[in-house]
Amino acid sequence: MKALNETHLCIIGTGLMGSSLALALRGKVRHLHGIDPDPSATPHFDTFSDALHSLYNADVIVLATPIRTILELLPQVGELAADGALITDLGSVKAPIMAAMAALPPRVQAVGGHPMCGKELSGASAADPRLYEGCTYVLCATERTSQAALNFMEKLVRAIGAQPLHLTPSAHDQAVAQVSHLPYLLSVALMLSAAEADDERLWQLAASGFRDMSRLASSDVTMMGDVVTSNRAALLSALERYAEQLAKLQALLSADDEAALRTKLERARLARQAWLDYRERWKA
Amino acid sequence: MKALNETHLCIIGTGLMGSSLALALRGKVRHLHGIDPDPSATPHFDTFSDALHSLYNADVIVLATPIRTILELLPQVGELAADGALITDLGSVKAPIMAAMAALPPRVQAVGGHPMCGKELSGASAADPRLYEGCTYVLCATERTSQAALNFMEKLVRAIGAQPLHLTPSAHDQAVAQVSHLPYLLSVALMLSAAEADDERLWQLAASGFRDMSRLASSDVTMMGDVVTSNRAALLSALERYAEQLAKLQALLSADDEAALRTKLERARLARQAWLDYRERWKA
Repeated sequence: MKALNETHLCIIGTGLMGSSLALALRGKVRHLHGIDPDPSATPHFDTFSDALHSLYNADVIVLATPIRTILELLPQVGELAADGALITDLGSVKAPIMAAMAALPPRVQAVGGHPMCGKELSGASAADPRLYEGCTYVLCATERTSQAALNFMEKLVRAIGAQPLHLTPSAHDQAVAQVSHLPYLLSVALMLSAAEADDERLWQLAASGFRDMSRLASSDVTMMGDVVTSNRAALLSALERYAEQLAKLQALLSADDEAALRTKLERARLARQAWLDYRERWKA
Repeated sequence: MKALNETHLCIIGTGLMGSSLALALRGKVRHLHGIDPDPSATPHFDTFSDALHSLYNADVIVLATPIRTILELLPQVGELAADGALITDLGSVKAPIMAAMAALPPRVQAVGGHPMCGKELSGASAADPRLYEGCTYVLCATERTSQAALNFMEKLVRAIGAQPLHLTPSAHDQAVAQVSHLPYLLSVALMLSAAEADDERLWQLAASGFRDMSRLASSDVTMMGDVVTSNRAALLSALERYAEQLAKLQALLSADDEAALRTKLERARLARQAWLDYRERWKA
């Protein structure tokens, strides 16, 4: 592998994540090439094309499209890529992508990636050079991923201010079902239940609590539809565990068991404080 | 009623909400008196005491304690208040408080209030003079609330940058169950289900989505315990409607009915956009 600052890097899919990555890597790689049918991210790149075969001379190829498109493109990218090229992705569910990466020709290297950041806005116009700063960036190896390829990805991750974390695809997928995909569905359900009430007063009274709890419902539906259906089994388990917790709270409230209810509220408050404290140590 | 800038105003309970109100009213009333057993908010007021009877010469008395304490204090405050004094509150559930206000002696006026703002931090140290800016501030009248008292409250609400909205106690309580108390319980359940998984990887991978969806779980438990138990019936209905929405999403995911699932995700996204648009017009 070349050094990062010698690298010709190609990003396929130049929406929020791909464009933000380009901005974060500006000046840290030799050349940034973007590929997307939508040319709006052109200014974020050194060169730009709508043709997949324009990736032919890239040292590193980053797939930054929705998951389904990553799975569709991977075989073609594997064929078009130069010998020794490193192929990586930003997809939120790793098991199906790692299976497709394992099937790539041996003359290319592949490392799965998932940066734990984003926002509810989408598209190149929402790009932010600091989007990746401070985030955990998961890396997954295939059976034949070289140490050199992993080392390169670690350097890239640190160069954009993120923190690499090596996980197996299934460990990753179960964890993100709980902390990312479940929260998205909870937010969707909240928005739907408020909308079905069809009461203008709700919209007048909804404040910062509702705003935060409904924010994820504004996420791009193409991206998130791929995510939830690609991580179906893990997400269904997380949903089941969540529904149990909610049913317990409902039962305590229904029984007017105030002492037990307050114990739960306090446990949740302390758990969040413990997480915030952990997070500060982990990011430090 | 005196003009706002001639008013001696007393705030009972000088945590986040009471202290922020004092900061927001600084220079807009003649005198600010605070009452709290905890003296930490003293610098935010002209005078401060831990004795309830020190409210005796106030023109306006604001109860800014948790709901249960408001209900306990109201009869005493009604006895101690000067003739013609206006008693108001900041409680998040209006039916029980309006019932207690209706029982106050006829020589005092009473208006229920609920500003739709706050944050998960509590105490005088989190006070913010701009906390009320742009928020909807619900006002509830008793059967014998005078127009003068309502007019005064409208002026006070506008003076701190908020927007008055007149509602009946039950209309208020049903709406806040959906947009405020339900989101709190959803956040608590999310935090509890993540904590029970007891997996360090969750804490490493949890990012901004989880942070926002769990924020309300950090709320003060004394305050929120009072809120959820005081609004039990409306909150149980909201929980039931929410659980139905979540079960529908779960069923579609379980049946792998991707088209119907994407329709739901899109409906939620559009509903949130409609709310954000409505909110901008309503605040303008």
